Amino acid sequence: MQEHLIIIGGVAAGAKAASKARKENPDLKISIYTEGRHISYSACALPYYIEDLITDQSKLLIRSPEIFKTKYNIDVFTEYRVIEILPDSKEIQVEDIKTGNKFKVKYSALLISTGARAFMPNMEGMNLNNVFILRSFADGIAIKNSSAKARKTVIAGTGYIGLEMAESFYNSGHDVTMIEQSNQILPVLDIEMAEQIQKYLEEEKQLKIILNNKIKRLIGNENNTVKQIETNDAKIIDADLVLFSIGIRPNVELAQSAGIELGETGAIKVNEKMQTNIPDIYAAGDCVEDIDMITGKPVWMPLGSSANKQGRIAAINITGGKARFKGVLRSYVSKVFDYTVAKTGLTEKEAQKYNYNYEIIIVTHKDKSSYYPDAREITIKLIADKHTRKLLGAQIIGKGDADKRINIIATALTAGMTVDDIQDIDITYAPPYSPAIDPVIIAAQNLQEKL
Amino acid sequence: MQEHLIIIGGVAAGAKAASKARKENPDLKISIYTEGRHISYSACALPYYIEDLITDQSKLLIRSPEIFKTKYNIDVFTEYRVIEILPDSKEIQVEDIKTGNKFKVKYSALLISTGARAFMPNMEGMNLNNVFILRSFADGIAIKNSSAKARKTVIAGTGYIGLEMAESFYNSGHDVTMIEQSNQILPVLDIEMAEQIQKYLEEEKQLKIILNNKIKRLIGNENNTVKQIETNDAKIIDADLVLFSIGIRPNVELAQSAGIELGETGAIKVNEKMQTNIPDIYAAGDCVEDIDMITGKPVWMPLGSSANKQGRIAAINITGGKARFKGVLRSYVSKVFDYTVAKTGLTEKEAQKYNYNYEIIIVTHKDKSSYYPDAREITIKLIADKHTRKLLGAQIIGKGDADKRINIIATALTAGMTVDDIQDIDITYAPPYSPAIDPVIIAAQNLQEKL
Repeated sequence: MQEHLIIIGGVAAGAKAASKARKENPDLKISIYTEGRHISYSACALPYYIEDLITDQSKLLIRSPEIFKTKYNIDVFTEYRVIEILPDSKEIQVEDIKTGNKFKVKYSALLISTGARAFMPNMEGMNLNNVFILRSFADGIAIKNSSAKARKTVIAGTGYIGLEMAESFYNSGHDVTMIEQSNQILPVLDIEMAEQIQKYLEEEKQLKIILNNKIKRLIGNENNTVKQIETNDAKIIDADLVLFSIGIRPNVELAQSAGIELGETGAIKVNEKMQTNIPDIYAAGDCVEDIDMITGKPVWMPLGSSANKQGRIAAINITGGKARFKGVLRSYVSKVFDYTVAKTGLTEKEAQKYNYNYEIIIVTHKDKSSYYPDAREITIKLIADKHTRKLLGAQIIGKGDADKRINIIATALTAGMTVDDIQDIDITYAPPYSPAIDPVIIAAQNLQEKL
Repeated sequence: MQEHLIIIGGVAAGAKAASKARKENPDLKISIYTEGRHISYSACALPYYIEDLITDQSKLLIRSPEIFKTKYNIDVFTEYRVIEILPDSKEIQVEDIKTGNKFKVKYSALLISTGARAFMPNMEGMNLNNVFILRSFADGIAIKNSSAKARKTVIAGTGYIGLEMAESFYNSGHDVTMIEQSNQILPVLDIEMAEQIQKYLEEEKQLKIILNNKIKRLIGNENNTVKQIETNDAKIIDADLVLFSIGIRPNVELAQSAGIELGETGAIKVNEKMQTNIPDIYAAGDCVEDIDMITGKPVWMPLGSSANKQGRIAAINITGGKARFKGVLRSYVSKVFDYTVAKTGLTEKEAQKYNYNYEIIIVTHKDKSSYYPDAREITIKLIADKHTRKLLGAQIIGKGDADKRINIIATALTAGMTVDDIQDIDITYAPPYSPAIDPVIIAAQNLQEKL
């Protein structure tokens, strides 16, 4: 039998794996099966598409099924649901969603890249019109269509997708209210960093942010469209559009029912080669569990950057090469209006949770020479181990260039650098890019003095 | 006798050392002697000041002599020339430039931060009005005053200061011609990178660039002001302003005459603590020789970033602490109109010179997700050792965010990372900041495939 790589799911990891596998092996039969109508799209672009910052829908679709066929000789089956994996016979059972027909296909290697889904709460009114989650391309199109006529939006959840969507709706002219069940926005950050961002959003963008609260139910109008929400404390807020952005879950049911082991986070457990516990079955992307490079512990933080890397690594190993995924720092960056919000490695609350003996420093500094016209502030929080002096993590936020600095720290964390080693980095300097002593160096100097 | 730190020169390293020494030791007597009228200014800001991008002169002066006295209790003696260092008696001989009076002052520790000077060629017409070098604050003011009335500027030299000044004059409405004696602009870069920048400058900015040529003489008008230049091949070019930016020299004569050892580059030789060969005499900033972190060999590349670090390190050691300067990667960044030009570590021609067995890759990629509105291209050249697979250097240029990526590589070089290690860096991703796979990762992947 001809070698046949079957990939389940074709957004980031799956699409990347398919094209990389083709590059590595011109003769391999490669098929992608996916429930959705779209593959190889940028889910991260959807907030910008919804607000019309990107107007051409086709730009978000990186590669169409036709391109996969003609350019890569890869067969893409959209709107096909894989209903069972049969490891003993090395087959999958597939259902054609349009016809209901079922059939089996043999694989020599299988890659599970089923991704994740947004969490949908179970409450009164969830079936009303203009109530959304944002995960798939289809979700994005649906929100965009409704957003044009809506004016009062309520977003449940203040993670980075919730905030990107707040900006998207704000830029579309909506009045935006955010409801967060925890005591801070962006719960992934430490609270004092989150509070600085909240202050900016409330004072400069007039966003309404409600903490320590939840939506209890949704109230519709005569057209079965949402018109209000009720909070846990019985507050009624007008809303003609509601977005739930309160967390995601890995799509692991298919894998689990085939006997594939899950990790302690509930996502699929894989080794550095992206292999599951079943021979010839790999997994990559948002459905897998990662190892945190700082703690060595399992974590689940699905991000497009890791998904693309993992898809590539899986493809190299499937086609006989050698590549390893070393782990994640859960680095992320997000544009929150004029703010850049970025983190890498551990937050202080994580350092506490993992019982590190740590020290922190928070400094605020201009990102360029202070006399240079568009110099803007960034606030850096650095965390280091008191004993080893190794960096544990950083959070950098502000209107200035936080992203440049977070990636210096991400590189330093990958290399296991200490606070002292940061001094030795020969960071570039010119007034349009940096002060003579970069804020990262200043933060590390101040942390040295505390250690 | 009270401990007395005397600092000769007070621009970057000297000013930084003074304030750091005060922070470390509140009781130390600290004096700065400088020939110039200005101290603690940003020389790197002068191009932007000259073109009126920065209009407030006082913003360039980071700390005035008065601030040094009132805030730090540091005595600053401007327009005082140190004419001799007497190591045996631990004294300096000083001349008050305004009065001609000479006197001696005792030091317990001496820091030489005499900086560098621009090279002035010896040719007919150098005494004409509107013929300049750019090094000191006074030079900047003089150019600014003449620039307002000038319209045709010739710049000799195409290093980064020459190019920054070309932009400055261009933005002031001048017609700009650049003359370069080598066969490429920005001789510090590899030629194919320089050629891309040259093409951009000629095609999009209508700069006239003449390679393989020099100014032979300057021709003046009846007011003793430059009106033309003649090139080596007898071409006459109209010019009502001429700037020579053809190299700098370290100011080492004072140190040398006191028996302080110079290195093979001609700059002052110091150890990691910034100590010279004479006890209690330190040196820092543009007058000292550095160690290249990649080759371990001495180099001289004076930059404001190193000067500030070295001043701080000298001050820590002088006041009894421990700090070491590990060396340089000769990292730099420069804004060249809409281009960012950046490098760190070795260029290919340096890798050749030092007999590395190396491999290179050049990739051009968008700096953000390609669908994001202001995504711009950057071209990355990576160089790695074939044997150890360690990175040796990078050059990154283009209209996109080259600076973020060069500092990822600078950090990786400081940590001694290989091309393979680059894959493991968990670089942040969001469409406004990066493609899902960062161009640095793509460049390293392509280089892996060649190695």
